Amino acid sequence: MNKQQTKSLEVAMLLYPGLTLLDLLGPQTVLSEHANIHLVWKTKDMIRTDTGIGIEPTATLSDCPKDLDVLFVPGGLGMNSVMQDAEVLAFLADRGTRAKYVTSVCSGSLILGAAGLMRGYKATSHWAAGELLPLFGAERTEGRVVTDRNRISGGGVTAGIDFGLVLLAKLRGDDAAKMTQLMLEYDPHPPFDAGTPKGAGSAMTQQVAKMIAPLNEQTRRIARELEGARV
Amino acid sequence: MNKQQTKSLEVAMLLYPGLTLLDLLGPQTVLSEHANIHLVWKTKDMIRTDTGIGIEPTATLSDCPKDLDVLFVPGGLGMNSVMQDAEVLAFLADRGTRAKYVTSVCSGSLILGAAGLMRGYKATSHWAAGELLPLFGAERTEGRVVTDRNRISGGGVTAGIDFGLVLLAKLRGDDAAKMTQLMLEYDPHPPFDAGTPKGAGSAMTQQVAKMIAPLNEQTRRIARELEGARV
Repeated sequence: MNKQQTKSLEVAMLLYPGLTLLDLLGPQTVLSEHANIHLVWKTKDMIRTDTGIGIEPTATLSDCPKDLDVLFVPGGLGMNSVMQDAEVLAFLADRGTRAKYVTSVCSGSLILGAAGLMRGYKATSHWAAGELLPLFGAERTEGRVVTDRNRISGGGVTAGIDFGLVLLAKLRGDDAAKMTQLMLEYDPHPPFDAGTPKGAGSAMTQQVAKMIAPLNEQTRRIARELEGARV
Repeated sequence: MNKQQTKSLEVAMLLYPGLTLLDLLGPQTVLSEHANIHLVWKTKDMIRTDTGIGIEPTATLSDCPKDLDVLFVPGGLGMNSVMQDAEVLAFLADRGTRAKYVTSVCSGSLILGAAGLMRGYKATSHWAAGELLPLFGAERTEGRVVTDRNRISGGGVTAGIDFGLVLLAKLRGDDAAKMTQLMLEYDPHPPFDAGTPKGAGSAMTQQVAKMIAPLNEQTRRIARELEGARV
């Protein structure tokens, strides 16, 4: 694609073991022509993602730029470990305080919440995890992409593509976002209407909710501990 | 997600430098709970993808299983090198002759074509590359996902998610695909109607087509050479 005349955006995306790679790759692909994207973790060792794909961090918590245009956190089944990691939470709190946009897809909004960045903000998450947002002081809000001041959160997994385009339009204008949408041929045709609990029906929704329940219970415990430590 | 009672599918996905990672990750994510997915390249060295993310192959051309349920090839700006690589084309021709499904997203259908696997088949590709399909004996066909006997091809980049769900429904039934769609919260809301040439308008479409033109010209030359070698 054409090189941008303007200065590249500085974007940090948190990696962690068990992240949902598609949460990250949607916005990473959308932003990639416009940004220096730092894939950040504690070390530069290979990270194993949800589907088994191994990816390489490009920066550590300490060498990630201090002043960011975008701080981004993906969701994933590995989130509960990250939410108990004081070093990572301190990194997010530090960068998040100064970033132009503090953002997430899927259960990434809960990790931002654990870092204290979502108190008093409207936010969304994966449909099966959204009920946990208030535990971190956030106001659960319906929407594929929810914007409240400089916080922008996307729904589950595939919402990352919609989120990325919304964010790019804010940062570089509608035409840049439209051009990227055309390059990515983003004209979705889901073969079924099963992408939401309403579309999928209650039996299937309960089946997924039951699988997620132990993870959510663990997140509730972590939220109580974080709240206890804060008081 | 729940473990499958049935035997895992054997799926090989070709990696190569400059592949479009989102082409691959859509179907890889959709299939991941149901399949042993082999990420295949000539070596196991890190592969640099389109957006800068580095990923790890899990198998080489020689240790990839011989009999596959699915052979899959993603598109990407690195495709022309692959189309001139006799070793990779021989691998695709060998596995493609025996695979249950021979599949692609984006310009991956051109790579399958270079391996001689698309002669006489209907297929699609990225909108900006579709005109090249007849050079490989394929019949360019409109559609987000095009199925002709055991060949299934998806359109550009994000079509990989639709393609993956269509393929999973064929392999494991509609309910498995719907459950995955719910897990991935695939209820897209593109912020603009710019995902097709028609939606984006002719000025923007011509701008993208102009960027792609040198790559397409090179592909035309490669197609002539392959045709010359075959006669």
